[in-house]
Amino acid sequence: MLRTRVKEEVIIPAYEGRAIVVPKGHYLCIIDMEGQQVGDFVCFNQGNPGEHVSPVHMRSSLSSIRLKEGDGLYSNYRRPLMTLVKDTVGKHDFFFPACDYYRYKVDFDLEEHPNCHDNLEKALKPYRLGYTELPDPINWFMNNVLDDNGDYVIEPPLSKPGDYVMLEALDDVVVAVSACSQDLAPVNGWKVTPLKLQVLEGI
Amino acid sequence: MLRTRVKEEVIIPAYEGRAIVVPKGHYLCIIDMEGQQVGDFVCFNQGNPGEHVSPVHMRSSLSSIRLKEGDGLYSNYRRPLMTLVKDTVGKHDFFFPACDYYRYKVDFDLEEHPNCHDNLEKALKPYRLGYTELPDPINWFMNNVLDDNGDYVIEPPLSKPGDYVMLEALDDVVVAVSACSQDLAPVNGWKVTPLKLQVLEGI
Repeated sequence: MLRTRVKEEVIIPAYEGRAIVVPKGHYLCIIDMEGQQVGDFVCFNQGNPGEHVSPVHMRSSLSSIRLKEGDGLYSNYRRPLMTLVKDTVGKHDFFFPACDYYRYKVDFDLEEHPNCHDNLEKALKPYRLGYTELPDPINWFMNNVLDDNGDYVIEPPLSKPGDYVMLEALDDVVVAVSACSQDLAPVNGWKVTPLKLQVLEGI
Repeated sequence: MLRTRVKEEVIIPAYEGRAIVVPKGHYLCIIDMEGQQVGDFVCFNQGNPGEHVSPVHMRSSLSSIRLKEGDGLYSNYRRPLMTLVKDTVGKHDFFFPACDYYRYKVDFDLEEHPNCHDNLEKALKPYRLGYTELPDPINWFMNNVLDDNGDYVIEPPLSKPGDYVMLEALDDVVVAVSACSQDLAPVNGWKVTPLKLQVLEGI
């Protein structure tokens, strides 16, 4: 059994994002504190910010649109930057975009709704990563339900309070997570609640 | 019935890419000349190259991972730049990446295999679009076969010689298409063959 201790802990308030460094060999837990809360996640190689976790390449390298324990989080260089080592939920998304200005403007005619894209950009700003377009996210706990035609609906997450995923860093990485700010659809159970990040080291 | 005439025609040789401008209100046909040949496709708004067709946003706006006649090809601004008006095949992919240097290096230990990423970049170079990362492609005619677990295999395309898709431009767009250069897997039936582009106007 993996024995660890917490080195750093960060609460992500509802409607906000936070970034954190996870050193190589350390673990990151993303904890759904109250349940049914999606976390939009991006991850950069700290030593080469041009390399980042890339869901489109993950779908190729994993030959799947579902994540399982043991799966690598592959980068645009087709090598894993992290590994999903533990998952208490078993249902996540990595084909859907972060909500953004255009989502709320086009679909809800709202100008200033909090959104994951801007939450992630704000959280990453101090790291000066120099990208131009934010990479696509992994949406932890997001529950897309596909039918046989390839059409889908987004239902509330299956996660209960305290559920989590645990990732191992295979390189020094900068990770950002947003408490998905969509409160006008079922994706977070029609409300937005906090998440918790923990960086752990093995003991 | 839509009546059109051909204004411009371009052959895309096997293992290469070509780019073309499709003016607003005109149509683009992508024709699989010999059958079973995937075409990797990217599309930019000519008036604002920061806006491009974005498969991740398409999957959200269409609530689907399958394309049907009438579907919009949505951009990163969540509005359609083109519409799929006719499709003689009915099976395409928009969740898989373009093959690239890393695909052949990591999976086949090849340094210099032709690849769609580089074909598209070379074809787009004269247009000086100024992007840093090439957008994800739509892979016309690509036949991913999903199982109930979300795992999939890539099988040869269902397209026969002369099959095509027809797209209407909703703005002036720059399109690039690569004759997918993967000859080491079933994706193009284990061989690479030419495609044809036609720009048509209504009469």
